[in-house]
Amino acid sequence: MDRETARVEAFSDGIFGIAMTLLILEFRVPPLPQGAEDGRRQLMLELLHLWPSGVAFLLSFGTILIMWVNHHGLFKHAHGADNRLLFANGFLMLIVTFVPFPTAVLAEYLDRRAANVAATFYCATFVLVSISYNLLLWSVVVNRRHDAAWPEATIARVKKAYRMGLWAYLIATATAMFWPYLGVAICFSLWPLWAMLRYYERQMK
Amino acid sequence: MDRETARVEAFSDGIFGIAMTLLILEFRVPPLPQGAEDGRRQLMLELLHLWPSGVAFLLSFGTILIMWVNHHGLFKHAHGADNRLLFANGFLMLIVTFVPFPTAVLAEYLDRRAANVAATFYCATFVLVSISYNLLLWSVVVNRRHDAAWPEATIARVKKAYRMGLWAYLIATATAMFWPYLGVAICFSLWPLWAMLRYYERQMK
Amino acid sequence: MDRETARVEAFSDGIFGIAMTLLILEFRVPPLPQGAEDGRRQLMLELLHLWPSGVAFLLSFGTILIMWVNHHGLFKHAHGADNRLLFANGFLMLIVTFVPFPTAVLAEYLDRRAANVAATFYCATFVLVSISYNLLLWSVVVNRRHDAAWPEATIARVKKAYRMGLWAYLIATATAMFWPYLGVAICFSLWPLWAMLRYYERQMK
Amino acid sequence: MDRETARVEAFSDGIFGIAMTLLILEFRVPPLPQGAEDGRRQLMLELLHLWPSGVAFLLSFGTILIMWVNHHGLFKHAHGADNRLLFANGFLMLIVTFVPFPTAVLAEYLDRRAANVAATFYCATFVLVSISYNLLLWSVVVNRRHDAAWPEATIARVKKAYRMGLWAYLIATATAMFWPYLGVAICFSLWPLWAMLRYYERQMK
Repeated sequence: MDRETARVEAFSDGIFGIAMTLLILEFRVPPLPQGAEDGRRQLMLELLHLWPSGVAFLLSFGTILIMWVNHHGLFKHAHGADNRLLFANGFLMLIVTFVPFPTAVLAEYLDRRAANVAATFYCATFVLVSISYNLLLWSVVVNRRHDAAWPEATIARVKKAYRMGLWAYLIATATAMFWPYLGVAICFSLWPLWAMLRYYERQMK
Repeated sequence: MDRETARVEAFSDGIFGIAMTLLILEFRVPPLPQGAEDGRRQLMLELLHLWPSGVAFLLSFGTILIMWVNHHGLFKHAHGADNRLLFANGFLMLIVTFVPFPTAVLAEYLDRRAANVAATFYCATFVLVSISYNLLLWSVVVNRRHDAAWPEATIARVKKAYRMGLWAYLIATATAMFWPYLGVAICFSLWPLWAMLRYYERQMK
Repeated sequence: MDRETARVEAFSDGIFGIAMTLLILEFRVPPLPQGAEDGRRQLMLELLHLWPSGVAFLLSFGTILIMWVNHHGLFKHAHGADNRLLFANGFLMLIVTFVPFPTAVLAEYLDRRAANVAATFYCATFVLVSISYNLLLWSVVVNRRHDAAWPEATIARVKKAYRMGLWAYLIATATAMFWPYLGVAICFSLWPLWAMLRYYERQMK
Repeated sequence: MDRETARVEAFSDGIFGIAMTLLILEFRVPPLPQGAEDGRRQLMLELLHLWPSGVAFLLSFGTILIMWVNHHGLFKHAHGADNRLLFANGFLMLIVTFVPFPTAVLAEYLDRRAANVAATFYCATFVLVSISYNLLLWSVVVNRRHDAAWPEATIARVKKAYRMGLWAYLIATATAMFWPYLGVAICFSLWPLWAMLRYYERQMK
């Protein structure tokens, strides 16, 4: 990694971090009338009623964290920040910034009649996430140095995982139109894949 | 590039990144009455009705991303962070931070009677953007090292592009007062210019 | 410390910084009717009535600052950013981001009947903070280099402080259910411990 | 400057940057009834009526920018990030984060009857700013290396400027209680002093 890509990486880290931190703005201190009879019970109930915000917070935070870990892995192999990389990365940043919105829509509507609209919107966003990672991978691979640090076998493995991911999200989106829970379940079933995806061979660590 | 300018660059990157990320705060989960008859259709319509926010988001994000790429290119040649550079850069940061506001005004009013006010406001902001980039270029050029890394020909080419940009935005602003769509079109027609502007000669890369 | 952990550290610093800065969004300029009789007195009273926001601001800011100082101390000894460290750190970031919310609830309800609910919620959050620091410490210790820079005695001392902290917060949570002020007092009595905790031996500085 | 202080500096830069960027959240797209008679005139007036937000934005941005430039100058001489420096810097960050609030209060109330309350609040904040800079200077000076890079004469000059600043802000605060415009004028008359304050001797650059 060189200085050029280090700057892109730091810039991206800033956006990842801010996107994660802005999620807390969803939470608001529940207002309680000053002379409430049994304030304790009421405040407890109010706090418990924030659970959908809590779920959206956890989901968005986890998603962006996993995206960040993968960005981290991918950029270990980046050399040279040409315009191709800058704009592919910029597109990914656009999507990173956007992710909290469909997640909040999902958390709000998952237990209501409009669940399939919310779930389709959520899954479709991850199709975009997947496309942007595929673009970024491509722009990193194009500029790679042909040395032992990133053997072709590893690249092929990562490429395959990214391509499979794209298909899985496309299927999830189609599924969510009719069975929202199943569609979302497919999306989440990919979390471990991304959390575990290695960008190097074990023996070269 | 030395340590001094590296800090200014990192600081600027932070501001670019935050300005891009704050754009998402425009989006709010559409509220739907709990017992709505046909929640699905309603939520879909509500989400579709967010398109002006979507357009503003895309425009602002793209604009700031392109500004960042150019900042990146310019700072490759920066040497020594004197007060001139610090304040020229500070003025640019002021404008970067401000850009999302006229963009949101534009997205809100472009299809309404007040379109020319919104368009003029938008174009005028880019006159400021252009002025600040001209100032920054000047403060970078003043401190440049006279070596092969940045030949006078390249400087002259960048200077010319910046000066032309300023004139184009001035003309766009005057045009937008009467023909808002044309004024905005001039602004956007410059995007490829800025996205493609090179800050080095091809053979020296 | 190597480049890998430096990136994790920078990323975390960003989140710490943003979480601290977002706290100011709590403050809003008090609105005053334009033709108010005695505007001076009214504005002064309005500003004074913001004291709970002020208290929440100071508490959250101080808490996150101390957490940052400890993160700083811990990462001096971090080597190698494996997935274990990335996710332990990610979990801590989740909690850092969350801390302002229970603090605001505490500031709002500490002088009202629901005080014990707010205090329990506040103390319980610090149980999570403590768990996440214990996890992070563990993931740093696992990857440590066995050299003089971090003798086993220091590790044992830090470990003990972290474990004691966890117990203290658990006790504080249980206490706050019945005596809210006492529970919160236990939490705050640990501030000096964390502010002073050294991650190196004095003679090796 | 070493790696330790570099991290503190990067962290502070993040907070400076975010505090500056959050200022834009003050601006909201003015809403206009859909079927307004003369939308153009109305939108123009609405945009012009945002001038107090504009003034607050410019003042806060300029203030934090100048504070950042000085932080920059001071940290060039910092060696070793001990707890003293960490907490002095943390206190400064607290104030940096807070500055936009009194500035907004000032912009809102400067042309109304409560002007002296707003002006006193504003000036008093800068007493805190000044105190925090004096603390930070002290904690930097204590750890300084006794070499030619920072001669005692320069330190004495900076110290004197800082001490004079504190007195000026104290006088401004007292003045603002009775003559709000004069108090604020004293504060602003110090801007050039801080913008120009050098942290090195000219010949050593």
